[in-house]
Amino acid sequence: MTHGISMAGYMFVNPGEEILVPSLFWGNYNLSFINAYDAKIKPYNLFKGEGLDVAAMGAELMSEGDKKILLLNFPNNPTGYSPDVREMKEIISAVEQAAKAGKKIVVICDDAYFGLVFEEGIEAQSPFAWLANLHENVLAVKVDGPTKEDYVWGFRVGFMTYGIKGGTEALYTALENKTAGAIRGSISNTSNLSQSLLLEAFDSPTYQEEKKEKFNILKSRYEAVKQAMKNPDYAEFFKAKPYNSGYFMCIELKDGLDADVVRRLLIEKYSIGTISLNNLLRIAFSAVAVKDILALFDGIYSACKELTV
Amino acid sequence: MTHGISMAGYMFVNPGEEILVPSLFWGNYNLSFINAYDAKIKPYNLFKGEGLDVAAMGAELMSEGDKKILLLNFPNNPTGYSPDVREMKEIISAVEQAAKAGKKIVVICDDAYFGLVFEEGIEAQSPFAWLANLHENVLAVKVDGPTKEDYVWGFRVGFMTYGIKGGTEALYTALENKTAGAIRGSISNTSNLSQSLLLEAFDSPTYQEEKKEKFNILKSRYEAVKQAMKNPDYAEFFKAKPYNSGYFMCIELKDGLDADVVRRLLIEKYSIGTISLNNLLRIAFSAVAVKDILALFDGIYSACKELTV
Repeated sequence: MTHGISMAGYMFVNPGEEILVPSLFWGNYNLSFINAYDAKIKPYNLFKGEGLDVAAMGAELMSEGDKKILLLNFPNNPTGYSPDVREMKEIISAVEQAAKAGKKIVVICDDAYFGLVFEEGIEAQSPFAWLANLHENVLAVKVDGPTKEDYVWGFRVGFMTYGIKGGTEALYTALENKTAGAIRGSISNTSNLSQSLLLEAFDSPTYQEEKKEKFNILKSRYEAVKQAMKNPDYAEFFKAKPYNSGYFMCIELKDGLDADVVRRLLIEKYSIGTISLNNLLRIAFSAVAVKDILALFDGIYSACKELTV
Repeated sequence: MTHGISMAGYMFVNPGEEILVPSLFWGNYNLSFINAYDAKIKPYNLFKGEGLDVAAMGAELMSEGDKKILLLNFPNNPTGYSPDVREMKEIISAVEQAAKAGKKIVVICDDAYFGLVFEEGIEAQSPFAWLANLHENVLAVKVDGPTKEDYVWGFRVGFMTYGIKGGTEALYTALENKTAGAIRGSISNTSNLSQSLLLEAFDSPTYQEEKKEKFNILKSRYEAVKQAMKNPDYAEFFKAKPYNSGYFMCIELKDGLDADVVRRLLIEKYSIGTISLNNLLRIAFSAVAVKDILALFDGIYSACKELTV
């Protein structure tokens, strides 16, 4: 995945160019884009109320300049949010409008957590499915990997897929060759062991079943989080940002609580590991057994209380 | 390895800067340095007669400009040449003179084929061993990997090691952190499978013995090449560039023979695969069984004859 993001940067980002990323984003984008390619990161506001602020994203696409690089990340890291079907249509419509207005848009779909959608009504497809044939001015780039989709942490395999309306064989061949050259010049190739094992796994008759088992484990953790968050006491100190998918969810701390102070108290006294982002704590519920999830949130509650008294 | 070279570029090469590489060099340096980091490649003459042209390398080090990036690659790809002990001392002395003259020198040691030395009197150590503590102005960077050293093609694991005279813990920590950030932003990490298997292998009581067996296979192929090249008829069409180590050797074709035309005839009519580089053919004897090596050179001889008549 990381290497796919890095290669997308290599392919499409010139020094000084802006990449539109959601305002809550994976910190590694800083390393992959800013440090490696001298790009600028321009955040668009992710949430408005309980849903996406699609208008903010659209406004950035329509801002000055002909070339736009948009990054979409669903399920989002850190928030674990994916658009519902209506929101997805709004996103696609905003991209289409900008394309019709003459903007040349590269949309990088970071699909690291693809498939981990836990609610009805949430769009289960990648935006890539909508964008690949949308408009001649829209080049859709899908970056995904088996790390989370297939639960093979440490395999370090990734995929890049391109789609553009009216794309010719010559164009796709050029994209493929340039991508292959970029890979050849940076890592030569991906681990052959990992690739071989994955190919075998994809062909296994029990692949879908084994994958479903793992999905159900994650879904049960997600459900446990939702159940825990029903506790009305928590509202005194924190509330959830919208979440419905992926590996994570975030809680927003009340004014007066410093997320990094809370984080440190949590790890030192409660042995609870979180990541702090401004006034948010990111909770990796994917890594917490169902039986421990209530204790996790109760611990956060206690730490907040301790720091408030 | 490739990623190590790429990371060395990320760490030390600014856009437009020159990297001094041997005049016979691995083509992938173009992708890793020029395409990825907008560097320039400045070749220094590799051979003079039957040995290295150390004076040419030294002159480049002493040329205008305070910062020099020197790439050393022994055993060399494509020629399969490593310096003898006297030549290694000359190389080190040239670097030291430039350092004493005030040049700040980063020396990247591409040690992809480290350990595959087949003759007595050839320096078996990496230049890194000589450079790591040579002078305050010389930062030695060793890049190596198990692909060829341990015969694990496809594992995709690499190592980077830094050495500088008087290097403090703070300096090495800074180098380590910056390298780790560069890796994190480009590939996140190396395949965990490959790393784990290698660690197990290094701890195996039969590791040295198994490695020696593989080395002996390669050495027997090298000896067969030397034996085959004794045929005086070959001199009519080609002669060997200096070689004594590594995976490859090169033959230089006589004037009037086009190496790429010979290459194509060889693959089409003789099923012999080589790589053409100007007027040279690179022979990967590492991949040819001892019993086939005579037929390989006889095939090249026949192809050359066919094209000359």
